[in-house]
Amino acid sequence: MSPSSLDELIDALRGLPGVGPKSAQRMAYHLLQRDQRGAERLARALGNALAVLCHCERCNTFTETEICQRCASPQRDASLLCVVEMPADLAVIEQTHAYNGLYYVLMGRLSPLDGIGPRELKLDKLLARVADNTVQEVILATNFTNEGEATAHIVAELLAARGVKVSRLSRGVPVGGELEHTDTGTIAQALVERRPL
Amino acid sequence: MSPSSLDELIDALRGLPGVGPKSAQRMAYHLLQRDQRGAERLARALGNALAVLCHCERCNTFTETEICQRCASPQRDASLLCVVEMPADLAVIEQTHAYNGLYYVLMGRLSPLDGIGPRELKLDKLLARVADNTVQEVILATNFTNEGEATAHIVAELLAARGVKVSRLSRGVPVGGELEHTDTGTIAQALVERRPL
Ligand SMILES: [Zn+2]
Ligand SMILES: [Zn+2]
Repeated sequence: MSPSSLDELIDALRGLPGVGPKSAQRMAYHLLQRDQRGAERLARALGNALAVLCHCERCNTFTETEICQRCASPQRDASLLCVVEMPADLAVIEQTHAYNGLYYVLMGRLSPLDGIGPRELKLDKLLARVADNTVQEVILATNFTNEGEATAHIVAELLAARGVKVSRLSRGVPVGGELEHTDTGTIAQALVERRPL
Repeated sequence: MSPSSLDELIDALRGLPGVGPKSAQRMAYHLLQRDQRGAERLARALGNALAVLCHCERCNTFTETEICQRCASPQRDASLLCVVEMPADLAVIEQTHAYNGLYYVLMGRLSPLDGIGPRELKLDKLLARVADNTVQEVILATNFTNEGEATAHIVAELLAARGVKVSRLSRGVPVGGELEHTDTGTIAQALVERRPL
């Protein structure tokens, strides 16, 4: 008995990650009842983002231009290329102010269960990017999850086969971390990867 | 450094209830990277719902027609009017198949902290609805939360002042419920509202 346009909106909201039937319903009621301007704004933002956003030809992140500002910047050290999973990871590394190289954003990670293999991740594009001979070292900064580690492993193999120098972010006890409150897997890794002083 | 159309989409998604900055970002990436058709569908569903949905003149629920199908149905007992907070509450009562009267949907509850008083709830519309003289009894089925109880209280007072018979859903131990696993407040209420056998 509920109007089809309402059902369609609830269905469309259910397509968002992490949104089940109850919250889709709550979102629809909220937008229609309390925040029609928010609903208009969301519809407009979706349409606009779909129309103007594309992937940077060099680093693959979202951009509104063929090549993003960062890749076009002469201030960046083009000999270093840091590979991350998502733009959010790139943002965290930028916040450290400890890196001035360039990036490549995979826009995902290998995830066989979700049907995301090397082809879906378009690793060809990364290999073509690295083939320009200005890149001297690729730093793998995928997450230290199972999927992120598997992704780093495959990317490292592909790059090594092409004679590219590859490194990985170090693992270990977090800065300021107390051993007592650090998981044993991390401590074991910090022992294996101990550094001479 | 991130494109403004992406920031605008993330901002618009943050306006959804229960969506924080992290999940808004995850939703935006998902829509743009993995589900562009879902994004188009959501934009279209929002525009369509905003364009065609209105509130039923009689019961106040969402409808695409002036008067919704349920209110227009001759099969319904027009002498009974059940007042609920939201369309989802109406749906639950319909699922019982224990009620064949009509409804009035408040589309909210009194919530002084959120600035929702009797005026924002448009209780005038409910009073006008009841004034048609076919309604013999109003059953208050707002939630048994603090806000729902306060709403029921105010609505009951307004209706009683107009000489309308008002009732409230009963409270007590849930059907199939074990006393041992029922909260003491509910048991206390079930004692106070005990029924003669
Ligand atoms: Zn770029
Ligand atoms: Zn109606």
